[in-house]
Amino acid sequence: MSVTAARGFRAAGVRAGLKTSGKSDLALVVNDGPFDIAAGVFTTNRVVAAPVVWSRRLLAGQEGGQPGRARAVVLNSGSANACTGSQGLRDTEATAARAAGLLGVEPGRVLVCSTGVIGERIDMPVLLEGLDVATLALADTPRAGTDAATAIMTTDTVSKEDTLTMGAGEERWTIGGMIKGVGMLAPGLATMLAVLTTDAVLTPQEAQDALASVTARTVNRINSDGCMSTNDTVLLLASGASGNTPSRAEFEEALTEVTSRLGRRLVADAEGATHDIAITVSGAVSEAAAEAAARTVSSSNLLKCAVAGADPNWGRVLSQLGTVPEDVCPFDPEEVDVAINGVTIFRHGAPDQDRDSVDMSPRETRIDITLSAGQAEATVWTNDLTHGYVTINADYTT
Amino acid sequence: MSVTAARGFRAAGVRAGLKTSGKSDLALVVNDGPFDIAAGVFTTNRVVAAPVVWSRRLLAGQEGGQPGRARAVVLNSGSANACTGSQGLRDTEATAARAAGLLGVEPGRVLVCSTGVIGERIDMPVLLEGLDVATLALADTPRAGTDAATAIMTTDTVSKEDTLTMGAGEERWTIGGMIKGVGMLAPGLATMLAVLTTDAVLTPQEAQDALASVTARTVNRINSDGCMSTNDTVLLLASGASGNTPSRAEFEEALTEVTSRLGRRLVADAEGATHDIAITVSGAVSEAAAEAAARTVSSSNLLKCAVAGADPNWGRVLSQLGTVPEDVCPFDPEEVDVAINGVTIFRHGAPDQDRDSVDMSPRETRIDITLSAGQAEATVWTNDLTHGYVTINADYTT
Repeated sequence: MSVTAARGFRAAGVRAGLKTSGKSDLALVVNDGPFDIAAGVFTTNRVVAAPVVWSRRLLAGQEGGQPGRARAVVLNSGSANACTGSQGLRDTEATAARAAGLLGVEPGRVLVCSTGVIGERIDMPVLLEGLDVATLALADTPRAGTDAATAIMTTDTVSKEDTLTMGAGEERWTIGGMIKGVGMLAPGLATMLAVLTTDAVLTPQEAQDALASVTARTVNRINSDGCMSTNDTVLLLASGASGNTPSRAEFEEALTEVTSRLGRRLVADAEGATHDIAITVSGAVSEAAAEAAARTVSSSNLLKCAVAGADPNWGRVLSQLGTVPEDVCPFDPEEVDVAINGVTIFRHGAPDQDRDSVDMSPRETRIDITLSAGQAEATVWTNDLTHGYVTINADYTT
Repeated sequence: MSVTAARGFRAAGVRAGLKTSGKSDLALVVNDGPFDIAAGVFTTNRVVAAPVVWSRRLLAGQEGGQPGRARAVVLNSGSANACTGSQGLRDTEATAARAAGLLGVEPGRVLVCSTGVIGERIDMPVLLEGLDVATLALADTPRAGTDAATAIMTTDTVSKEDTLTMGAGEERWTIGGMIKGVGMLAPGLATMLAVLTTDAVLTPQEAQDALASVTARTVNRINSDGCMSTNDTVLLLASGASGNTPSRAEFEEALTEVTSRLGRRLVADAEGATHDIAITVSGAVSEAAAEAAARTVSSSNLLKCAVAGADPNWGRVLSQLGTVPEDVCPFDPEEVDVAINGVTIFRHGAPDQDRDSVDMSPRETRIDITLSAGQAEATVWTNDLTHGYVTINADYTT
């Protein structure tokens, strides 16, 4: 139960034949309204896939529709349609056009997302035929939502959905969502495709503001492997079908909850990971400073290998923390404390409690860094670096 | 033949007992003059080890000696003496004082370098006793140079030395050097200890200028695993014993040659590596822009895993290149070419030659990125990310 949990949405996920594995690879999410509000945040990579170019322009009102409006999203796995030149963009346009024809809407109302191998053209006859099948399969059932979430998986081992309902009776409104992404999870926007749906009544601006603000503090604070995707896209579709208009604070709180939980599942399924690591920097001069420090620590291969080996190697934390520029995050190294899973093994610039007292057996590993420079705090999630990650990524395309 | 190749130098490497493995762990390099010129470049990490604090101050003339002068270097492996608080600094001072007493010089003329585990105090009685033995073992022979190079190894699998002699007869002068470092090799200064010796006649300023300029373009362009050390130190000692004064250009050229070759050996011995990867960015608007782009590409775990799997996955090159900020390195993604081992598989924003025609079997892998934005070029060296790296670093301290 995910993208179909909110009223006004149908979805489908089918086997088009884009994946050599024969697994399902094409998802369709349709907003039946009454409203067709849409918002999106995209990768900040300068090399972006054709569907990102298309969807960004569409939401800006540059593909014939109004800004902030869309009726449907087509999502395929198997090919990222990135680095495919002008042919790639024509393929994305053809995808939107075919879906639009099937759904009886304008092509400028159909968002497109792709994920998979970079640099290979999508098999268009297969994709277009798959769209016919997906349209026939559209339903507003939980099963249809799960089918869609399954069809966008790449090296994900489980599909990832979440839903949250607020209010009761006639006041009830819902946010649901699906997400994929287990590698290339990095700064700038955690690498992923995600579609969030709600039946709350929102304006395009409210939807965009809420999505930008919430993703910045949730999925954008995941750094699995430091590698930024060409295809990152998080979309929010609002049908207004509940007739309920939550306050901005209410809506952002609910969206934060759903998006955090979906992000948490990404980390839990990160390629090869055996530990999920929450790096919390507190006592910083600002939230931005805390986030920068936590993000820097989260990018240490040495720390991530140490955690894989169940080794509370706080030297790796300190050596990485020291690479944050002073103007970005001021602190005095002599005032820093580090705790791993609740045990303070480094205090005020010198070793403290015995590292052997740290229990590294839980999957969730908490690294708490206190800077004693201010009051602000931020958490960035990462995961350990294991043999499994190397195996998966040494053999990804061959 | 390395630090003892130039006239005026003696060295030793002994088993003090700092390493649990029982391997040699203490090196001493002495400059017998007639001059005692010294220069150093150090990690830019904000968290620095006690010996870095000491050696930096010493070369600045803040430890009782003159700026740019030193008679000897003590180097130990087994412990980095980093994150050890004020006790760590007292330990470094005691090390310099003991060596100074044994050599009959002032403590403010003895540089100290440490490498090994972060956060553990050095076993000082063992170190000080080892210094007595090392002093007795000092010699100007090739064997003594190799002993010193061996004693500074941590997870290095081979010792790394190099030497270059310029001129002939009475005009002859020599540069020699040793280096260690196979993990935590990163931006800001490739993580390493290195001692370069020369019998050329140099002023302290000439030595410092040459060292800073040469390291910036050689060892500082190695990015093995993106992790910056707390202990990075590259020292240059000049005895003047040849009586020859090379021109600045001559000296820098020779120093570049020796330092490049030593750096190349670091990459070749990088933890777990099976491929050495040279990433060359050309057609950039400036050398700094080219270096920034090459450094960014060199930090992609996904690319490094792909190379480990002998997979010419140029999508990983493009997606990583796209994360370089535009103000740092301007280019148009549609104008970029990428060649791997001489085969152009991506040209002007679209796939070109067949990836299957790339031969990935050589250990040296060349990735050439042409930006078509200007005339400048830079190369950054990295290596692949393998199971071996994970194994080594999952079990480093436990």
